[in-house]
Amino acid sequence: MTTSTEAETDPAYAAIEDLGAAPLWRYYGNLFPAEPRSAAVPYVWRYHALRPHLLHFAETLSLEEAERRVLMLINPGMSDPPATVNSLYAGIQVILPGETAQAHRHAANAFRFVIEGDGAYTTVDGERLHMRPGDLLLTPGWHWHDHYHEGDGPMIWLDALDYPLVNALEAGFFELFECRSQRPVVPDNISSRQFVHGHLVPAWDIARSEVSPIGNYPWAQTERAFDAIAEDAEGSQVDGIVLEYTNPWTGGPVMPTMSCRVQRLPPGFRGAAFRRTASSVLHVVRGSGTILIDDERYDWHDRDVIAVPGWAICELRNPSATEDAILFSFSNEPVLRALGLYREELTERQG
Amino acid sequence: MTTSTEAETDPAYAAIEDLGAAPLWRYYGNLFPAEPRSAAVPYVWRYHALRPHLLHFAETLSLEEAERRVLMLINPGMSDPPATVNSLYAGIQVILPGETAQAHRHAANAFRFVIEGDGAYTTVDGERLHMRPGDLLLTPGWHWHDHYHEGDGPMIWLDALDYPLVNALEAGFFELFECRSQRPVVPDNISSRQFVHGHLVPAWDIARSEVSPIGNYPWAQTERAFDAIAEDAEGSQVDGIVLEYTNPWTGGPVMPTMSCRVQRLPPGFRGAAFRRTASSVLHVVRGSGTILIDDERYDWHDRDVIAVPGWAICELRNPSATEDAILFSFSNEPVLRALGLYREELTERQG
Amino acid sequence: MTTSTEAETDPAYAAIEDLGAAPLWRYYGNLFPAEPRSAAVPYVWRYHALRPHLLHFAETLSLEEAERRVLMLINPGMSDPPATVNSLYAGIQVILPGETAQAHRHAANAFRFVIEGDGAYTTVDGERLHMRPGDLLLTPGWHWHDHYHEGDGPMIWLDALDYPLVNALEAGFFELFECRSQRPVVPDNISSRQFVHGHLVPAWDIARSEVSPIGNYPWAQTERAFDAIAEDAEGSQVDGIVLEYTNPWTGGPVMPTMSCRVQRLPPGFRGAAFRRTASSVLHVVRGSGTILIDDERYDWHDRDVIAVPGWAICELRNPSATEDAILFSFSNEPVLRALGLYREELTERQG
Amino acid sequence: MTTSTEAETDPAYAAIEDLGAAPLWRYYGNLFPAEPRSAAVPYVWRYHALRPHLLHFAETLSLEEAERRVLMLINPGMSDPPATVNSLYAGIQVILPGETAQAHRHAANAFRFVIEGDGAYTTVDGERLHMRPGDLLLTPGWHWHDHYHEGDGPMIWLDALDYPLVNALEAGFFELFECRSQRPVVPDNISSRQFVHGHLVPAWDIARSEVSPIGNYPWAQTERAFDAIAEDAEGSQVDGIVLEYTNPWTGGPVMPTMSCRVQRLPPGFRGAAFRRTASSVLHVVRGSGTILIDDERYDWHDRDVIAVPGWAICELRNPSATEDAILFSFSNEPVLRALGLYREELTERQG
Repeated sequence: MTTSTEAETDPAYAAIEDLGAAPLWRYYGNLFPAEPRSAAVPYVWRYHALRPHLLHFAETLSLEEAERRVLMLINPGMSDPPATVNSLYAGIQVILPGETAQAHRHAANAFRFVIEGDGAYTTVDGERLHMRPGDLLLTPGWHWHDHYHEGDGPMIWLDALDYPLVNALEAGFFELFECRSQRPVVPDNISSRQFVHGHLVPAWDIARSEVSPIGNYPWAQTERAFDAIAEDAEGSQVDGIVLEYTNPWTGGPVMPTMSCRVQRLPPGFRGAAFRRTASSVLHVVRGSGTILIDDERYDWHDRDVIAVPGWAICELRNPSATEDAILFSFSNEPVLRALGLYREELTERQG
Repeated sequence: MTTSTEAETDPAYAAIEDLGAAPLWRYYGNLFPAEPRSAAVPYVWRYHALRPHLLHFAETLSLEEAERRVLMLINPGMSDPPATVNSLYAGIQVILPGETAQAHRHAANAFRFVIEGDGAYTTVDGERLHMRPGDLLLTPGWHWHDHYHEGDGPMIWLDALDYPLVNALEAGFFELFECRSQRPVVPDNISSRQFVHGHLVPAWDIARSEVSPIGNYPWAQTERAFDAIAEDAEGSQVDGIVLEYTNPWTGGPVMPTMSCRVQRLPPGFRGAAFRRTASSVLHVVRGSGTILIDDERYDWHDRDVIAVPGWAICELRNPSATEDAILFSFSNEPVLRALGLYREELTERQG
Repeated sequence: MTTSTEAETDPAYAAIEDLGAAPLWRYYGNLFPAEPRSAAVPYVWRYHALRPHLLHFAETLSLEEAERRVLMLINPGMSDPPATVNSLYAGIQVILPGETAQAHRHAANAFRFVIEGDGAYTTVDGERLHMRPGDLLLTPGWHWHDHYHEGDGPMIWLDALDYPLVNALEAGFFELFECRSQRPVVPDNISSRQFVHGHLVPAWDIARSEVSPIGNYPWAQTERAFDAIAEDAEGSQVDGIVLEYTNPWTGGPVMPTMSCRVQRLPPGFRGAAFRRTASSVLHVVRGSGTILIDDERYDWHDRDVIAVPGWAICELRNPSATEDAILFSFSNEPVLRALGLYREELTERQG
Repeated sequence: MTTSTEAETDPAYAAIEDLGAAPLWRYYGNLFPAEPRSAAVPYVWRYHALRPHLLHFAETLSLEEAERRVLMLINPGMSDPPATVNSLYAGIQVILPGETAQAHRHAANAFRFVIEGDGAYTTVDGERLHMRPGDLLLTPGWHWHDHYHEGDGPMIWLDALDYPLVNALEAGFFELFECRSQRPVVPDNISSRQFVHGHLVPAWDIARSEVSPIGNYPWAQTERAFDAIAEDAEGSQVDGIVLEYTNPWTGGPVMPTMSCRVQRLPPGFRGAAFRRTASSVLHVVRGSGTILIDDERYDWHDRDVIAVPGWAICELRNPSATEDAILFSFSNEPVLRALGLYREELTERQG
């Protein structure tokens, strides 16, 4: 038997390389980590710092040129391919009065969460969806969509896509629509109006699907939910009063690849320490607070966006004595669950 | 070979009877009908005719004596066991101010649809549910429930149960609670408040189940749904703007044995002729109109209850030029679908 | 307030009866039993006593006259409609060499378990299935089927159907085929050959369904399973080495309404006392033993058929010191599970 | 408005970079390809060329040193991280008489397909599984497993894992067992013996799961399936007589991330041109033939391994006039289906 030093010079290594093979024993440790080490780092994107630049580009770069005018929120640890955390991407998009963003479709699932502005629309497969702050608009994979803006002032929203996952699985497709904009084929906002009230759903012929048929989950409903629950629900020791947006046909997540949630942290909330294999992105709808991630403290403020890597230990806190904090978030939890890879655990409190 | 006349006197018939057997060839036609012939007949129970008698019993019969003070709506074709249509039962219950109906539970699933009154509660597994006209309250199988009334005037509701099915399957259980009434263990109406808004659901630990966790689907939400949809949805050519109450955990019916729906027939609505193997019961929330069932016309008015036998050809009409008609209904469609026995078809228009 | 004696003569009772209503308080106890009381009684049909009569009818009654020549095994407690236990029916059918049983289809699901004989076929939706003792042949609802016999000697099998359930749900349909027999349209036994080996299934286009695509589960496979498991598996303390026939598309029961199982009770087996809301029928493939049902002992022998009512406490025993006992059984457990009505429990040993 | 050339020098680009953001308009085309372009290339690993090197390492490198002695089959287009196609990895492992490969477990799912040798075992969660050529052995995620070899001559198998997917999703975990080898806790091969016959499954308490409970799908069953089907089944125009190994609890794939199939191409088989978003790996069990991938022809021979990138157009051919070709294959189709990303299409014939 040769020693491993001798093995280094063994010509069999070159021979198998020529045949397309490699020795597993030289790769072993990297392939099987003891536990996940995310390439992503915790990060907070500062909305109020980014906003002036976004508006600058809105003035200097036409939508015809940009196709979509978006600041990608790229995790410092994940530049190639660019992603926000693991299989998820977030960006901040702006559109100005009178502009239209061209109709296209892609295999990647997408949604928008409206940050500010009024008077814009997204048309999804022929349904025109009006956008107001706090609304969650879905553009599931392979649905035609275009945006336009008939209001005043800039319209800004958070864009989210699963393209890092779709591309990693080599399942990406893209098409431009035959015209710049779709013509509406159903009444405006009809899908929301049919589905948002009282867990009542249309009982006539609408095809059931693994993606939600709801084009827009309006913020007004979310507010009503928080008001109705008030202080009466126990909620989650980790996440406070946390609600999941659901697909009416299945009761499950809005799309097979992304789960969307919104949570209220009451004044003084101090969440339990927790980790899970899912990666997530938080967006501050209002309020401010802190998150401890793997023993580091990050402050967050109104409209910031936060990257939370998978398997990082997190604790959410709202130190305000009087004000709620409201966070919108999305994660790849449905992917991990579907593939049998989801794990979660409460841990010791940090610091 | 003997002739069939000779067979009649064949002593083998008596011999097999002694051994617990019988000749299939003498039963054949009855066991395999060419198509379903329901034992139920179409029938309309007149609320305004029944109401005075119901109030009479409210005055003359104590709840201690009656346990539940209900007029059973028994189909003329189905007296033993008593049922409204096929596997379903409906009744009209009244409770007076100051009364309590004793806590019990049964394997049969039940729900209430409130007809009139205010100030009563149903407590279901420790959650107190306030009842208002048009509210749908669930008491799924084996959930403790009791009713009490703190308001003024009689409180009247439609009761529905699947006991004919549960008993036919010999799966009925019943228990009295240790006390006359349950003590609330969670805030009033918390389940509704957590679930009725915008297809948002709690993302903390609540056990998922095949029965809906919603104790009360409030009428206010149903009205909002109809208002939001307005004239903009196509609806069903058979049933108009018809909405199904759903289980948030599954997107399916509220219980495995009963589907609950509510439908709006706009002025002048004339539904297509249709039949299905499911049996159903309609209740007129408001308005009046007609239903053709197997070529017979039945008029219905405010608060009436209508038996629609399975596989009967039906057509719904709202002849009013100005007023909507609103119908609540329930059926055993989930049973037939789960067992692979559901069929439906559009047919020729009748008459 | 009147007393309950006065109430008896209250004219309101007659008045509501005229309006189609009845007082729940006079029905209460019957509608909500404390626990299930099956109409069925435990019963053992003696194959060796019935067999001569069956053969007598085979000689004296033509299949043209009888359509199907079957001795129905009617539970002494369930004559109208005739059933074996609850929602299930079993019968013993005979067909002679040269005979054909006419092609038809019905909404009721059916299967056959072959008792004796060789050389007969059942054609199911154009696939000819050869029948050998111990084979389980499915004729799911609305599948055309006819039988014919090209061998020697009588061919006898156990027939099972869910018509009591289908008829109770008023969902029965029946049609005669246009000819007396179907012409084969696929190779004989192809479905079994494609599915019975090693949990391998065809990956080309065959429509998935809630009913098994397997026409015949051959006894040879069942024997191989018992041989392979031998004494090495723990099995069930209630049922010994009990195996369920499954639908390859779902892993669940062969049909939505009936579960089929086969069990081996090793020499000296003494099962735990147990009850469940499902009703079942046992058929002795070989061996003999006893079953205690609600404290009564019933002996069973080779090829007997046994009715086991739901919620009866049962204990199975094989007193032989040397011989296995093998039982085939079927039950309505899938119905009760689908509807949320299944319960089971181990109980104290009887006697 | 500045021109796009001016924009290149716009200091806002540097400013947003400092804030963790990037301009989507500079990444657009790469993120949304018109259709998938796999990083993998078609490739054939030559078993007979690799085998001598594998045996060389068996002699020169101890298992204590190597942990697992495997030649990784690394796609020339996918070296970092090393993968065979997309989310899948394949390798060829050898173990010598008297050796043991240490017990460990990882979140990644794995299986082995035995190529040659006899007398080795894999122990999976305490069940010892004997390995024979053609057997498929599962070691699902987080199941302890170790290998040892008590026979003569080298034992060689194809290893497959989904670690590229598990690692990409940052969900990898790994643990060494407390001892070098597990002690058996159940009878050898009991899971196979309980499940492989006739779509019969144990009806006693075995927890259902999304991963198959079958430790070994023995080749003897696969042969029996092909023999039973013979020339009688139509099969797939793309893949011939192709069978999927299934999970008895669900009827679906053996694991949530990998589908395993085996196919027989009869003499003269010429498959239709086809592509799908799933990536796959083929292994030649016996016979030889060709595959056209995106207009290039690749010959394959006994025991070779072939990488088939997703969305590549493929055609399989068996030019032999007399001999079958048998291919084992695995793919990530379940991943793409679960996430709504699966597409397939027949295409024009190539060349």
